[in-house]
Amino acid sequence: MFRKGDRLPATRELAGLLGLNRTTVSAAYEILESEGLISGHVGKGSFVTGSPQNGGSTVDWSGLLEHNETPAGNPAPPAGKEVIRFVMSRPSDALFPLDDFRAACQAVLCRSDLADILQLGSPSGYEPLRRHLLESALLQGLATADDDLIITNGCQQALDLIGRVLLRPGDAVAVEDPIYAGLKNLLSGMGARLDGVPVGADGMDVMHLERTLERERPRFLVVTSNFQNPTGATLPLNARRTLLGAAHAAGVPVIENDAYCELRYRGQALPSLKQLDTRGGTVLLRSFSKVSFPGLRVGWALGPKRLIERLRHAKEASDLHTDQLSQAVLLEFVESGKLEAHRERVLAAGAERLAATLEACREFLPAGTRWTEPEGGMNVWVRLPQPLNASELLPRAQKDGVAYMPGRYFEVSRRDAGALRLSFAGLPPEQIRKGLEILGRVVAGDLEKSAESVGPVPAMV
Amino acid sequence: MFRKGDRLPATRELAGLLGLNRTTVSAAYEILESEGLISGHVGKGSFVTGSPQNGGSTVDWSGLLEHNETPAGNPAPPAGKEVIRFVMSRPSDALFPLDDFRAACQAVLCRSDLADILQLGSPSGYEPLRRHLLESALLQGLATADDDLIITNGCQQALDLIGRVLLRPGDAVAVEDPIYAGLKNLLSGMGARLDGVPVGADGMDVMHLERTLERERPRFLVVTSNFQNPTGATLPLNARRTLLGAAHAAGVPVIENDAYCELRYRGQALPSLKQLDTRGGTVLLRSFSKVSFPGLRVGWALGPKRLIERLRHAKEASDLHTDQLSQAVLLEFVESGKLEAHRERVLAAGAERLAATLEACREFLPAGTRWTEPEGGMNVWVRLPQPLNASELLPRAQKDGVAYMPGRYFEVSRRDAGALRLSFAGLPPEQIRKGLEILGRVVAGDLEKSAESVGPVPAMV
Repeated sequence: MFRKGDRLPATRELAGLLGLNRTTVSAAYEILESEGLISGHVGKGSFVTGSPQNGGSTVDWSGLLEHNETPAGNPAPPAGKEVIRFVMSRPSDALFPLDDFRAACQAVLCRSDLADILQLGSPSGYEPLRRHLLESALLQGLATADDDLIITNGCQQALDLIGRVLLRPGDAVAVEDPIYAGLKNLLSGMGARLDGVPVGADGMDVMHLERTLERERPRFLVVTSNFQNPTGATLPLNARRTLLGAAHAAGVPVIENDAYCELRYRGQALPSLKQLDTRGGTVLLRSFSKVSFPGLRVGWALGPKRLIERLRHAKEASDLHTDQLSQAVLLEFVESGKLEAHRERVLAAGAERLAATLEACREFLPAGTRWTEPEGGMNVWVRLPQPLNASELLPRAQKDGVAYMPGRYFEVSRRDAGALRLSFAGLPPEQIRKGLEILGRVVAGDLEKSAESVGPVPAMV
Repeated sequence: MFRKGDRLPATRELAGLLGLNRTTVSAAYEILESEGLISGHVGKGSFVTGSPQNGGSTVDWSGLLEHNETPAGNPAPPAGKEVIRFVMSRPSDALFPLDDFRAACQAVLCRSDLADILQLGSPSGYEPLRRHLLESALLQGLATADDDLIITNGCQQALDLIGRVLLRPGDAVAVEDPIYAGLKNLLSGMGARLDGVPVGADGMDVMHLERTLERERPRFLVVTSNFQNPTGATLPLNARRTLLGAAHAAGVPVIENDAYCELRYRGQALPSLKQLDTRGGTVLLRSFSKVSFPGLRVGWALGPKRLIERLRHAKEASDLHTDQLSQAVLLEFVESGKLEAHRERVLAAGAERLAATLEACREFLPAGTRWTEPEGGMNVWVRLPQPLNASELLPRAQKDGVAYMPGRYFEVSRRDAGALRLSFAGLPPEQIRKGLEILGRVVAGDLEKSAESVGPVPAMV
C-alpha cells in the first residue's frame, strides 16, 4: 500500500503491471489528482498527498475490536534462507504429482457437467463426491444407516461448524493437551473453556479423561485417534474402547479428528472410534489435505443425520458451500486411482523421513532428551533435558540453522517448557539428519552452560 | 443411505460403481456380515440387518442441538420439469464461457508455481490475487493507505467473519428490510438482534436509518449500495452521503455489501460508500460470484487494516484459507481479459432480461400490481394488489408453471404478504415473458375470486 509522500509508479509501468491500458491508468491518476489524493510533478511523477479530508475515523475500531481478541496463530516462520524448518505440519510439495493433478483437472474440464460445477452448489457438498465418500464409508463400516456426510473446507471448518452448532457461551470442551494451535484458537475464540486431557506416548490419558468427563461435563470431546498433532501419538485399541465407554456414560459426543489416518507408515491400522461406536455418539472428521494438496480445502464430517443436518444449515450460513472446482478435481483424482498411487509414494517417503528423524534423534540429541516414536503422520514430539526451555533455545537454534515449534504453542493448561514439535514430513532425509545434527549441538551447548550456572543446591530445612 | 431390510447392490455392481476391485467389495461384505450388520442370501443378494448392538445413542443429540435451532434456509425449489423458475439470484450457466474458463485453468496448470498453489496458503488469500485486487482498489480510489484486503469464500463468509469479530451476544445489527435470507440466517444464527430499516425504490430509507442508529446503537450496519437483493434498489448518491454522515455521527461501522456492483445494465455508476467515506468507517465486500462462477467461492473484504487483521485471525480459525486453485484460476481469468469480455456479454444479456421482465410485468400483471425498476443486478421486487398473499398464491402458480420466492423469506420485521421476488438473470427473455404471462393469469384469477368473496363493507361508526 502507498503512504503519504510515496511516489506512484509511472503510468506506463503500472499499466504493464496490471495489464491495463495506459490511458485507463492516466485517467485514474487524473481522478485521484482532482480529488486531492495525489499530486503530479512534471518529470518527477505522481505523489501521494493523503486523504482529501483530514477527519480521522469516527468509528472507534479499537473499542469495537477489543472484546474478543483472538490469540495469535502460529508464529511466522523464521526468516533467512539457510534454516532447516521442522515447522509446518504439512506434506512435502516436492512430492506433489503435478502431472497427475493436471490430468485430473483436464478430465474435469472435459466433463459435460462442467457448467454445473461452476454454478452455485449445495451446502452438503458436490453431490458426486459426497456420494462417493458416503458409499466408501459404508463399505468400510464407518457409516451406518443413521449417518450422513457433509463436505467442509478441510477438518478445520468441520470443527468450526460443530462448535457453532453445539457450543453455548462458557461451555467446556475436552481436548488433548498438548494440541495444535489451530484447534485451541478456534474453540477459545468461540468462548469455550478448554479442559486439557494429557496426551502421552499412547495418546489421550483415558483415566484422566474419565475424571474430566464426570467432573466437567464438557459439551463435547475432540480426540485425535491417529498420529496426533503435535505428539504423533496413536490411541491403542483398548484405550479407544475405554474412551467410548466413558463418553457414552457421560453422554458426551466424541469428535474424532482424524486428518492423518491415511498416513500410517508402519504397524497395524486400528478401527476408528466412529467404527467402534455402535451407539451413534461419534462424528468422524477427515480430509484430503494431509494426503494430497492442502491448498485445495476439502474435508468432511460423517455422523448422525440430525447433527449433519444442522451442520448443513451452519455451513450455508457460513459460506454457502465448499468450492466445487476442487471437489470435482479431487473426486477425479480419487476415482482415477491417482490418489492411491500418490498415497503409496507419500507412505514410502513418510516411512523414510520418520525413520531418518528417529534415527537422527538417537544419534544427535544429548542423553536425557526424550521423544515420541509415532507410526505415521507428520510430527515427532521432543522433550529436552531439564532445565532447558525450548522457546528460549529457539533463537539460537535458528541462528545455527534449524527451526521447530516450541511446546508452548500447543499447551492447554500444562506447561512443558522443554517440549518442541518436529514436523518432518516436508523435509528430505538428508535435511532431517543435518537439521537434527545442528539441533543436537545447540541443545548440548545449552545443557553444558546450564550445568555450569547451577550452583550447589541449598539444603531444604 | 441404506436402511434395515434394504438389499445391497451385487458385489460386481458396487465394484463397478466405486471403481474398486470386486474382491475388495466381497471382502468388505464379509466383514459387515461377520459383524452382523448385513446378511447374505445365496442367489438373493445381501441385506442390511441393522446394528450389531441394539443400544440407542447415549448421546442426546436432540437435547444438544435444541439451544440454537437455525432458521430454515431457502425453500427447496418446487419439483416438476415444466415450471419456469424465477427463484435463484444467480447467473445463467448457459452464459458461462466454458472455453475461456478451460483456457484459464490450462494457464494455471502450466505455471511454474503450481505446487505453491496446491500447498497450504495464507489466511489473507493467494497473494498474487490479493495484490491485484488491492492495487486495483487503490487505482479506483476504493482503497486508502490505511486499508487492507482479505480474500474470503464469497461475500457470505466475509459477513460471517465480520460477525465473529464484532458481534457480542444480544448486539443489534441494522439491516435492510426486506433482505435476502442468507444474511438474516447468518446474523440471527449468531445471536444478533436485527433492526430492519425499510427499503424503498431508492434503497434503504436513510431518515429511518438515522432514527435506528440513534435509538438502537447497532453494532454495525449492513447496506447494499447497488441492486439490492431482493428489491433491486440502488441507493442514490445523496442518500449515500446522508447514510455515511449518520453512521459517522453514531460511530457505527458500515458494511457495504456490494456483490452486484459489476452488473449495472443502464444508468450511471455511482461512487461506492467505501469511496465516499474518507473517515475509514466502511468495509467493502465484493465477489466474483455474481459476475462469473458462483461454484468457485471467492470474494473479498476491503477495509481498515486493524479490522482486516482481525478478520485474518478469524479466517484462519474458521478454515485456514480460501481454496487456492480457484483463486489462481480467477486471477488468470481476470488478467487475461476474459472476465471483462464475459462481463460484457453478461451485461448485454442482463439488460435484455431486465427489459423483458419489466416489459412483461407491464403487459401481463393486473392493474394494482407494483414492481421496482432496477438498473442492474438479478432481481425485481413485485407487490401484488391487496388482498393477495404471495405465499398462498405460490402453489397455484407452480401448478400452472411458474415459481418465485414469496416475500416472507426476506422480511425482517415488516410483513408484506403481497410481495414476491422475481430473479430474472438465469432465464432467457422468452422464458421470462412466458413465465410472467402465466403469473399474470394466476394473479388475475385470484384477484377476481377475492373480489367476489368480499361482501359489502360495514359502515364504521
